[in-house]
Amino acid sequence: MTTEKKEFLYEGKAKRLFATSDEKKLWVEFKDDLTAFNAVKKGSFEGKGKINLRISNLIFDYLKNKGIDNHVVETVSDTEQIVKKVKIVPLEVVIRNKAAGSICKRLGFEKGFEFRDPIFEVFYKNDELADPLLTYEHVMAMELCNLRVYEQIKNKVLGINMHLRELFEKAGIDLVDFKVEFGICPDSSVLLADEISPDSCRLWDLETGESLDKDRFRQDLGRVEESYKIILEKLEKAVS
Amino acid sequence: MTTEKKEFLYEGKAKRLFATSDEKKLWVEFKDDLTAFNAVKKGSFEGKGKINLRISNLIFDYLKNKGIDNHVVETVSDTEQIVKKVKIVPLEVVIRNKAAGSICKRLGFEKGFEFRDPIFEVFYKNDELADPLLTYEHVMAMELCNLRVYEQIKNKVLGINMHLRELFEKAGIDLVDFKVEFGICPDSSVLLADEISPDSCRLWDLETGESLDKDRFRQDLGRVEESYKIILEKLEKAVS
Repeated sequence: MTTEKKEFLYEGKAKRLFATSDEKKLWVEFKDDLTAFNAVKKGSFEGKGKINLRISNLIFDYLKNKGIDNHVVETVSDTEQIVKKVKIVPLEVVIRNKAAGSICKRLGFEKGFEFRDPIFEVFYKNDELADPLLTYEHVMAMELCNLRVYEQIKNKVLGINMHLRELFEKAGIDLVDFKVEFGICPDSSVLLADEISPDSCRLWDLETGESLDKDRFRQDLGRVEESYKIILEKLEKAVS
Repeated sequence: MTTEKKEFLYEGKAKRLFATSDEKKLWVEFKDDLTAFNAVKKGSFEGKGKINLRISNLIFDYLKNKGIDNHVVETVSDTEQIVKKVKIVPLEVVIRNKAAGSICKRLGFEKGFEFRDPIFEVFYKNDELADPLLTYEHVMAMELCNLRVYEQIKNKVLGINMHLRELFEKAGIDLVDFKVEFGICPDSSVLLADEISPDSCRLWDLETGESLDKDRFRQDLGRVEESYKIILEKLEKAVS
């Protein structure tokens, strides 16, 4: 039985969500839009949704082979996929291998400083509050998830980092940092959701140090589309 | 042998530090100055140093009786004390029993919201960076203290909170939140340092809910001096 696309539910910064004929599944459309600085800066390029979907699928498949499952059920077109309906934990879960972006401004680290251990950070997904940094105690006080889920998220994202560093290194790319989101399934298990793409990672060319991610858009460095394509090509080569 | 005051070392927002004839001790002068919002707002009232020294001594003595030692060696005048020279850990260690101040703005808590468990927060003592919030992982990455010291600080401040809530409740005061600092002794033990006073606590009258602390200065509520005196009187009565 084919799952059919039903009514529109929600438009996010880079995706559109629809209900499906199966109440346990959602229909996701990857948009060509790019936003930065809490959506103060907006842009787009044709084909971004398509490239990101391919990159995210490649990474999610790679992680699945390593034993880390995700919410994707099926890819239905160049820009559309069907995913399991999970309760998204309202946390942006970040791992930083090197310092870049907000942590440099906040804490005074020099760009490129390599952390001895990867830094695990969580931010509250809340546009009004501009996604503030949270400690473990905040997450508990705000009841954004319970202790079991928090610890599973932390363990999972550290595992994801380990595997992705290996994958990206093979592709000649330095995985500087990345953001992921998790959902809770009806059976209470914790599942990797959202996407992993140059929108949500900092990826530097291992040889030249050049940014090949959304920082090219954030900082008006040009060649945004080209960089996303390079990431896709390098990853495809690395897994072939 | 009397410890003598020697050369001036450092002027902080509310204190002046001097060397002494004993290299293991420092001479501290409590100033009448008040500052807020990372010293953007400045003020003072005559006798503030004297009141804060008395309040801090009373609280430190109370905690010492409960088994939590501090850096004070001896009080030498109304506004001066001799303290052990410790290596100050560059963290502002905060406990919040109820939401007030920055946590309301940052995370959207309503003022007065009572946390199920006290919230433990640490901020990096750094004026240039405006004292940013840190997670455990940041403290380790920045090597601001080691794991043993961090855990001792956390345990100590939670103990301090338990004892001070009891003391303040007896005095008819609601201990909303407070900030402390810790130092490391030459023998590596962790010692409560700095001061505990209406400069570093949020204290609300248990009956009326009225602020009796530095928020009166921060928010131009008036009767700052009177409020500090009320805190001293209430505490003196509570321990008598």
